Amino acid sequence: MNQDRYPSRTGEEASILERKDPVIHEGSGDLKGWMDPNDVSFYEQNGYLLKKDLFSAEEIRLMVEKLNDELKRHETIDDETVIKEPESNEVRSIFDVHENSSFFKQLASDERIANIAREILGSDIYVHQSRINFKPGFKGKEFYWHSDFETWHVEDGMPDMRALSCSIILTDNHEYNGPLMLIPGSHKWYVSCPGETPEANYKSSLQKQEAGVPDHESMTWLAEQAGHQIDRATGPAGSVLFFDCNIMHGSAGNISPYARSNAFFVFNSVENRLEDPYSGQPPRPNYLANRSRSDVITPAHSPFAAQGASV
Amino acid sequence: MNQDRYPSRTGEEASILERKDPVIHEGSGDLKGWMDPNDVSFYEQNGYLLKKDLFSAEEIRLMVEKLNDELKRHETIDDETVIKEPESNEVRSIFDVHENSSFFKQLASDERIANIAREILGSDIYVHQSRINFKPGFKGKEFYWHSDFETWHVEDGMPDMRALSCSIILTDNHEYNGPLMLIPGSHKWYVSCPGETPEANYKSSLQKQEAGVPDHESMTWLAEQAGHQIDRATGPAGSVLFFDCNIMHGSAGNISPYARSNAFFVFNSVENRLEDPYSGQPPRPNYLANRSRSDVITPAHSPFAAQGASV
Repeated sequence: MNQDRYPSRTGEEASILERKDPVIHEGSGDLKGWMDPNDVSFYEQNGYLLKKDLFSAEEIRLMVEKLNDELKRHETIDDETVIKEPESNEVRSIFDVHENSSFFKQLASDERIANIAREILGSDIYVHQSRINFKPGFKGKEFYWHSDFETWHVEDGMPDMRALSCSIILTDNHEYNGPLMLIPGSHKWYVSCPGETPEANYKSSLQKQEAGVPDHESMTWLAEQAGHQIDRATGPAGSVLFFDCNIMHGSAGNISPYARSNAFFVFNSVENRLEDPYSGQPPRPNYLANRSRSDVITPAHSPFAAQGASV
Repeated sequence: MNQDRYPSRTGEEASILERKDPVIHEGSGDLKGWMDPNDVSFYEQNGYLLKKDLFSAEEIRLMVEKLNDELKRHETIDDETVIKEPESNEVRSIFDVHENSSFFKQLASDERIANIAREILGSDIYVHQSRINFKPGFKGKEFYWHSDFETWHVEDGMPDMRALSCSIILTDNHEYNGPLMLIPGSHKWYVSCPGETPEANYKSSLQKQEAGVPDHESMTWLAEQAGHQIDRATGPAGSVLFFDCNIMHGSAGNISPYARSNAFFVFNSVENRLEDPYSGQPPRPNYLANRSRSDVITPAHSPFAAQGASV
């Protein structure tokens, strides 16, 4: 294992380190030029980018149909890839959809998202994790602040900050139904969290996170750097949110009648493949942190056409 | 006891009844003319009104100072007027501040709020309940949807919909720190809730409400009537929110670093004094539902002047 450039949960006090990797990674010419230069600099500065209407209403209709198929298929299965609400037993997430559904596998390679991911990460990419998320109306629970990278680094052995998440918004995200909140610019800092990682932490952390939780002082500091601004990813279905692996994000609960659903892909650079976890513990399962089926994504035009959608 | 025009928790299924009282009540000429006619019709239609900058920065500074005094004074007291967070033991609300603090008693009669309350309720008014609320940063818990009137009617014996709440916003309310959410127009309907009222329900209901909870179907219907719109009371410190006793409202949790505080007065018409609770149970204590100290409010100019604030 290389030296740990991003130590966390080492039993020390919380601390804030500077990011040691670029946000927009250098890459060969054929990877570049897909994004509007303003979008590139917005992403570099803020750590995220919301592209409205990247998918058509007809495409979203089809995705929701496929999502409902997956939901139905998992109703009777108590598979480890299915995460349910702590209190209500309602399905919250289904992991590994890019492996278990040909539709979502194709979706991951749609050039409208894959080209942006490749341009930002400056290399070929593969799917590190995929899932579809349901945040039910009335009782959607909150997700406390976290950096994905902190977990992926400590628990999965992801060496560098060279990955991003892509969330395809399947239901309108309003201010009032628990949209994702992001602290702009927080991706430029690394919050080394107090505590240590319990054994097989992932079994409980997907429902309620106890390790890798940033302390109040660091969170206050990050929000101060952002001028006390906290952004929300609100937008109509068909929008896509791209966000850096290290941006601090979370969401409040959802008491509105309106569910929030999205399809979620994490892309990692092929030059940033997983090593042994920095926690020293056994790696998490493949459906959470893909280390064995890392097929390189070939961006494709309209994978929807074959599904009968007019795109 | 008169016939119950607003039955709820009678063991029947949930149902939705029409409001039987006006929203803007008739009253003599000296009560009227304080409000902008546009504000009157906005309140009538939506069930609430947010007046920005009703109090100056200097006045808010003084209120926050007094609020902190009250907080400090109650740190060591485990009085029943003090409500703490279920998990963290942090103070969430202090009741009866208009009785226990001369400052908050004066504030309740400030003409800028009292005249609006009198104009809407069309009569003399008194304080039905008062409190100061702290919604701490990081761990402020959600409040599920409810109509205040449903509780005040069933548990306190408030006969008619002729009361309103006035919330003086002491810290900036943003989209991201758990602002009050309101369903516009929902005050025109009464959701008769399923279930019955447990004995001494108030002892647990202030931390987590179990009775008087509207069902999902009714909530979905109310939001549909509002065109799927859910409003949020966001605004700078110094704003004041007035809202009808029967409007459906709630709030999500607050994971942001920024606390939300307000000073809260419920004004009731002197023609709507409490009777025996419609639940048939003993009345709640006076600090929750004032039935014995109902001094008529005389609107006063600048009660702050005596406190040295430049107003």
